[in-house]
Amino acid sequence: MNTFGQIFRLTSFGESHGRGIGGIIDGCPAGVVLDVEQIQAELARRKPGQSKITTQRQEPDQVEFLSGIFEGKTQGTPIAFAVWNKDQHSADYNDLKNIYRPSHADFTYMQKYGTRDHRGGGRSSARETIARVVAGAIAKQILDKAGVKIQAFVSQVGEVKLEKHYAELDLSQTESNIVRCPDAETAEKMIDRIMQAGNDKDTVGGVITGIVTGVPAGWGEPVFNKLHASLGFAMLGINAVKGFEYGSGFEGTKLSGSQHNDVFIQTENGIRTKTNHSGGIQGGISNGEDIYFRVAFKPIATLLKEQQTIDIDNNPTTINPKGRHDPCVLPRAVPIVEAMAALVLVDHYLLNKLNSI
Amino acid sequence: MNTFGQIFRLTSFGESHGRGIGGIIDGCPAGVVLDVEQIQAELARRKPGQSKITTQRQEPDQVEFLSGIFEGKTQGTPIAFAVWNKDQHSADYNDLKNIYRPSHADFTYMQKYGTRDHRGGGRSSARETIARVVAGAIAKQILDKAGVKIQAFVSQVGEVKLEKHYAELDLSQTESNIVRCPDAETAEKMIDRIMQAGNDKDTVGGVITGIVTGVPAGWGEPVFNKLHASLGFAMLGINAVKGFEYGSGFEGTKLSGSQHNDVFIQTENGIRTKTNHSGGIQGGISNGEDIYFRVAFKPIATLLKEQQTIDIDNNPTTINPKGRHDPCVLPRAVPIVEAMAALVLVDHYLLNKLNSI
Amino acid sequence: MNTFGQIFRLTSFGESHGRGIGGIIDGCPAGVVLDVEQIQAELARRKPGQSKITTQRQEPDQVEFLSGIFEGKTQGTPIAFAVWNKDQHSADYNDLKNIYRPSHADFTYMQKYGTRDHRGGGRSSARETIARVVAGAIAKQILDKAGVKIQAFVSQVGEVKLEKHYAELDLSQTESNIVRCPDAETAEKMIDRIMQAGNDKDTVGGVITGIVTGVPAGWGEPVFNKLHASLGFAMLGINAVKGFEYGSGFEGTKLSGSQHNDVFIQTENGIRTKTNHSGGIQGGISNGEDIYFRVAFKPIATLLKEQQTIDIDNNPTTINPKGRHDPCVLPRAVPIVEAMAALVLVDHYLLNKLNSI
Amino acid sequence: MNTFGQIFRLTSFGESHGRGIGGIIDGCPAGVVLDVEQIQAELARRKPGQSKITTQRQEPDQVEFLSGIFEGKTQGTPIAFAVWNKDQHSADYNDLKNIYRPSHADFTYMQKYGTRDHRGGGRSSARETIARVVAGAIAKQILDKAGVKIQAFVSQVGEVKLEKHYAELDLSQTESNIVRCPDAETAEKMIDRIMQAGNDKDTVGGVITGIVTGVPAGWGEPVFNKLHASLGFAMLGINAVKGFEYGSGFEGTKLSGSQHNDVFIQTENGIRTKTNHSGGIQGGISNGEDIYFRVAFKPIATLLKEQQTIDIDNNPTTINPKGRHDPCVLPRAVPIVEAMAALVLVDHYLLNKLNSI
Repeated sequence: MNTFGQIFRLTSFGESHGRGIGGIIDGCPAGVVLDVEQIQAELARRKPGQSKITTQRQEPDQVEFLSGIFEGKTQGTPIAFAVWNKDQHSADYNDLKNIYRPSHADFTYMQKYGTRDHRGGGRSSARETIARVVAGAIAKQILDKAGVKIQAFVSQVGEVKLEKHYAELDLSQTESNIVRCPDAETAEKMIDRIMQAGNDKDTVGGVITGIVTGVPAGWGEPVFNKLHASLGFAMLGINAVKGFEYGSGFEGTKLSGSQHNDVFIQTENGIRTKTNHSGGIQGGISNGEDIYFRVAFKPIATLLKEQQTIDIDNNPTTINPKGRHDPCVLPRAVPIVEAMAALVLVDHYLLNKLNSI
Repeated sequence: MNTFGQIFRLTSFGESHGRGIGGIIDGCPAGVVLDVEQIQAELARRKPGQSKITTQRQEPDQVEFLSGIFEGKTQGTPIAFAVWNKDQHSADYNDLKNIYRPSHADFTYMQKYGTRDHRGGGRSSARETIARVVAGAIAKQILDKAGVKIQAFVSQVGEVKLEKHYAELDLSQTESNIVRCPDAETAEKMIDRIMQAGNDKDTVGGVITGIVTGVPAGWGEPVFNKLHASLGFAMLGINAVKGFEYGSGFEGTKLSGSQHNDVFIQTENGIRTKTNHSGGIQGGISNGEDIYFRVAFKPIATLLKEQQTIDIDNNPTTINPKGRHDPCVLPRAVPIVEAMAALVLVDHYLLNKLNSI
Repeated sequence: MNTFGQIFRLTSFGESHGRGIGGIIDGCPAGVVLDVEQIQAELARRKPGQSKITTQRQEPDQVEFLSGIFEGKTQGTPIAFAVWNKDQHSADYNDLKNIYRPSHADFTYMQKYGTRDHRGGGRSSARETIARVVAGAIAKQILDKAGVKIQAFVSQVGEVKLEKHYAELDLSQTESNIVRCPDAETAEKMIDRIMQAGNDKDTVGGVITGIVTGVPAGWGEPVFNKLHASLGFAMLGINAVKGFEYGSGFEGTKLSGSQHNDVFIQTENGIRTKTNHSGGIQGGISNGEDIYFRVAFKPIATLLKEQQTIDIDNNPTTINPKGRHDPCVLPRAVPIVEAMAALVLVDHYLLNKLNSI
Repeated sequence: MNTFGQIFRLTSFGESHGRGIGGIIDGCPAGVVLDVEQIQAELARRKPGQSKITTQRQEPDQVEFLSGIFEGKTQGTPIAFAVWNKDQHSADYNDLKNIYRPSHADFTYMQKYGTRDHRGGGRSSARETIARVVAGAIAKQILDKAGVKIQAFVSQVGEVKLEKHYAELDLSQTESNIVRCPDAETAEKMIDRIMQAGNDKDTVGGVITGIVTGVPAGWGEPVFNKLHASLGFAMLGINAVKGFEYGSGFEGTKLSGSQHNDVFIQTENGIRTKTNHSGGIQGGISNGEDIYFRVAFKPIATLLKEQQTIDIDNNPTTINPKGRHDPCVLPRAVPIVEAMAALVLVDHYLLNKLNSI
């Protein structure tokens, strides 16, 4: 159950303080010329220590490809890769060996497996998402050739919310600030909010918005594997995610059908819709309009202050985590959201080749 | 891609105006004594014509089992079943053969497959959910024996919202009114809101809340197939769903970590949490607390009034649907939400048998 | 585990004496114009009562399609179908309810599931292969358009063996006799051998040879899902099959490499091989030459004479089956072998669309 | 398509002359205490350079585990591993860059993918089986605790055939000679035969027999994934394999049903069969008797003498391979056969936990 995708399949491996994090991509078409620097650039967007609002841990997170690429091209064979772990302060976690941290996976792993690698959260660490970012970066390169572009940005931090519609934003500005919000003014407020959380030794949650442009009509599956169901599944599989909506989402439930329906119109570029409450997907299949969605992230569970909890023998105790932790997951989660969206889209791109003969 | 589940797998078939709707359940354990009346009762909750706020179409929706059951017990072999179509007014749809209805799947199916069964929406009709309700009813019976109970109810219709926390409600009252809201006062307002939509020849959306009790700690998968990701995937695969959240959901993004964390406490019944912002799931794995989630439904796209649209030759036209349609999908979607949740949970119940030897 | 195939997937259902046998084909491309008579013709090749050397049971085995076909064309949606059971003499099996027949699946089903439908062997009956023949007939029609032809014939019955190489045979003669051997002289001997077995109230086994022509180079998967491994898996999944070999097979183990290697040669039609010990597959991938393979069938376990056995309480007893049974499975298994080969090949045909973008 | 198994899944990666060979095992139960030396011992049985009848290449083939094991125990998380490549004489293969070797996968890979890593055969090299031996060694350890033992041996080399029934052999003697035949006398003849092939700069094929003891009744799946179909699929996925048979196999086709049927008998140890033509499997499900099967290997295609062939531009040419190659694959394939059988059996062992609740 560590495999994602139907055709373009990522199987991920690794723990936070083990040998490394990596994966195998199976089902990647042959003949794709890979830009390895671009893959590394995506990892740089995810890596710790990149700004004052992320953890100060320094992890180079350099990817090594182990198979499947020859003379710069994919071979149609499995692409294995690893990012070897460095700078591990495993000793920071010794205290936690016998303790269940609140709202972490310590307790549930132990209940499920009867054993766990407690160091840095083991497999439940968000460090696992490295594998997704690498695979997603390859997916992005394939999609790029097909004219599909995926862009995510931070649209809310705590109560600080970007109120503009995505079409009003200049998404090229997302990377111009450390919080990855394309609106400079809101970005400042978000940064302040995160700094405040850090000063309080507390954490803060928020929302990431994803935009996919260039998907032609026809991608997606009609029943269970609807395109938005695949996207939702992908997003809800990211650590700390609590919700997903696309198109009109939860707000759309308050509209009447006559307000919500997207009327088809004739255009020079063929059939389009006047509005896009559908979020680019109708009946689970893309209709050629922009796909957009929102992903809710809870505040990170690791606080740098004392909390009450229980040890593995069911005795009350307290924890007081040390180490270098993020006060807010959002800025570093932007490339993860993009990567997971890319994995979904490349999979449906390939699936769509099978509709007819 | 018409199969749902990893171990307990439903493969669904059928179109709205074809021979019938049905499916095959593969991976159902042997020796389960089935209560067929209970399965039929779930179909009755879903079927049209059940009250003044649903479509007045009369469809008996009687299930016939075709295999896999002998002397009242499952045999470990595939359970095939069908609900044969009746009372089809296919002629009602003749006008729609060459037209793309707004916010339906007509256009996208045509783009994907180059062909479609236009009668009643064909495969994209919500009638397909019959297969899910039957399979879900079987899953429920298995879960029931394991002490797991799944209950859903309508918590919002348009702007009418049930403000109480689920723990304050008497869920046994859900079936006491036609809108399936356990709070009598709010139910009345919801019914009025739906009646109003019907009178306006319009439609209205809303939210269904699902509650799962009795899941022991340890169900779920840690990385991609997190328990809540599976639930979200299931819900987003239901027709008209636009969003999913569990536990603290989108609102939880505004809390700080110290507010959000669920502190572990000692109890007579073992380890519990003081609060349940986690929604019963931590790191993708159940922790023994109640699982709760919310599902957003858009207003139904079929309006009984004239709308502008495009025909299959890309010429502007208008549609003015006739026939008998629901003004609101919510009341009939409650058993569908429960069924999909049951399919997810029975799958993770079985998967969980594989953790250790 | 009742699903066959990766892309073109058949999920089969049904028991010998239940409501019927059928299946769902998911992943069939849209827009395929189906020749239903041709499908029915394949069922006629499989059905009982077709000649003096098969069982005299009369079963019309008429297929009914339940979904996925509209105006004669596949819709890209699941194709459900059923052959309803008729002419069931379930009472013939009452004696067998508490007995394990030698070399049948009675004992093993009971051990596995703790329950079984004993009537006519239930799910273990070769009647289940009806689902395969229907799905295979659709696969054949798709392959036919791609220039691929699948032909099987009986090459051995008991010790009566067709000694000629397949290239010396006129395969259009296979259907000209009731045993389905394209060599008239050998066919006579085989028929005699089967008649003799019938007269002895005994049964006899044999070998079916399959030939696939027109597969272009490039179909197959290189590691686990080698084209011949998929074929072998398919054949070994047929009732009564004990062995599979392709190309030079078991005999080829005695050759030296210099004898066995298929030298590449230049031809007007591109690269070909001088010999074809490879059986048209190299490294698991088709090389454009004919694919050929042999499938071993054991003698049928149901004998019309008394045999010693054990009842379900582990007491010794005897059985003396009545009813109408085949003395030899081979003639009726020819369309089943072809069907399973077709399912494998259509799957690899579709998979092969995913190699490159 | 580089994943093997339903529950206990191996995804393999790597090329002959790339960074290394490895894989990820997903679905391994938690809490298994691994004997890493035993895993390494299996690799030693497979590795080159182990005797005078194998290639003289020296490859240490030391496995490194990258994840999923903590304090010596499996964690229920993915077990990644690699054997890093050493001693690569890639230059030996420069001549082959533009040539298709007879009966290799060079031509078919190129046809399928339009690109290939020609060095040492790339992904089509039997070096890929390292991943299978590692995963199989873990599977063996799990099976061992369940009382299941898998033993393979060489039963034929060229025309030299071990005529004894496996029950007459002392399988503990298999490792006592370099050809891995438990009969000392026959082993000598086989070794001579292989030496002769080597002296001739030629190669020779043969047969490996596999024996599985201790499987309880009830493992296997009844329809497509019959236990023997899974075994056949596994064996036919091994490089150079041309055929598979189990139980009475191809020879059994000549028996009558009354000779072939395995009569059930009462014993102190419950129900057994008097004979075992079924090879321990009835209706696709184990019956508690020994499982035995035979696997045909063709002679290796790489000959150390000149052969006619074609280059990638379809011009005739000759090849004259250098390097260090095996004259016979059989002795080194014994642990591979065992490994693949172990993967199949551990998968069915786990699947069998899902039959009932």
